[in-house]
Amino acid sequence: MRIERDILDKNNDHAAQNRARFMQTGTFALNFVSSPGSGKTSLLVRAIGDLRERFPVAVIEGDQQTSNDAERIRAAGAPAVQINTGKGCHLDAHMVAHGLEKLKLERGGLLFIENVGNLVCPAAFDLGEAHKVVVLSVTEGQDKPLKYPEMFAASDLMLLNKADLLPHVDFDVTGCVANALKINPDLQTLLVSARTGEGLPAFYAWLEGRAARWARANAPKAVAE
Amino acid sequence: MRIERDILDKNNDHAAQNRARFMQTGTFALNFVSSPGSGKTSLLVRAIGDLRERFPVAVIEGDQQTSNDAERIRAAGAPAVQINTGKGCHLDAHMVAHGLEKLKLERGGLLFIENVGNLVCPAAFDLGEAHKVVVLSVTEGQDKPLKYPEMFAASDLMLLNKADLLPHVDFDVTGCVANALKINPDLQTLLVSARTGEGLPAFYAWLEGRAARWARANAPKAVAE
Repeated sequence: MRIERDILDKNNDHAAQNRARFMQTGTFALNFVSSPGSGKTSLLVRAIGDLRERFPVAVIEGDQQTSNDAERIRAAGAPAVQINTGKGCHLDAHMVAHGLEKLKLERGGLLFIENVGNLVCPAAFDLGEAHKVVVLSVTEGQDKPLKYPEMFAASDLMLLNKADLLPHVDFDVTGCVANALKINPDLQTLLVSARTGEGLPAFYAWLEGRAARWARANAPKAVAE
Repeated sequence: MRIERDILDKNNDHAAQNRARFMQTGTFALNFVSSPGSGKTSLLVRAIGDLRERFPVAVIEGDQQTSNDAERIRAAGAPAVQINTGKGCHLDAHMVAHGLEKLKLERGGLLFIENVGNLVCPAAFDLGEAHKVVVLSVTEGQDKPLKYPEMFAASDLMLLNKADLLPHVDFDVTGCVANALKINPDLQTLLVSARTGEGLPAFYAWLEGRAARWARANAPKAVAE
């Protein structure tokens, strides 16, 4: 417990530094968390295509091994840095700080951080993001919020992905949302499909509204001469 | 403008008194707002049936004329007070205070306040509730959040009612949610049907989670002897 506390304290220091950097550069950062295979990368690829005319977008990709995802992101037209965590099951704020050194952040831009696919470890690690967004696909089962409560408690938005598969799977959307709200009554939920694009306009409206408010709250203070 | 300010200031004083009363009696109060015909009363009738074994429920009904709604609520098994606003297009906190005199509020109970059907006037009037819940039915069109922004800005939850009619109407759920999020990026949305009951478990989970947190935050302080 003591070691865990020390690790989290240290992480929080780095997260605060990342957050200060995001304020300086005017960067709205989201931390995407999920199980492996929920479709995070496909969502980001689609969102980059849809949003890049309105926002500069940069991406940090976390995976234990390979740089496949960063390559997919670059092919979609956004600069991306791949972080390999090796044995680690999550990104931490220090790794993200190093990733940021390799990215040019533009004012008013978005930073998507795609965490390692894991519904447990990333929950406790603040990376300096404005919000954690948990992605759950409808092929995974509606009990996941109850089984992995920390992740749903730490997130502000749940994207229920693969909505196009709903006719083919036995997934109770209302039951899943009810389970998530039992854990976190503030959680917002949107039903989306990275494949068909359905539901994504609502996600983009959420993102723009939150980013605009974040920018107002974190505008650089006027310097008194 | 000056008169409007005076009216709102006075209302806010009464709302604060209602809020203090709700803290004293341990009552979690929701203020339901919508256009006429969105199905608020049907929703409340169904919710009373589903929730009354878990919570004592009381209702304040606001209408310009008639006591039809209070009668429907009483038939569903909850005590109800009807307030007729006459020419008024909304309840105000002073009217609610008078209504409360006629209701016995039980500790840990719910108070549903059904406002006058009107998407404009009730937005500005705090009644002392924990949350405004805006009900929009899928027969009304997805542009309503943009046309009546104050109501959607003032609400914490949007219930998209009459989900059972979705196959028969030309209503874009995602577009509606996107419009609402443009106005209020914190707004939570649940798709429900008072007729079939679909989606209501998620609403009850939201309600229980919010009520539990409200109760923790407003627990009577221990009195030092």
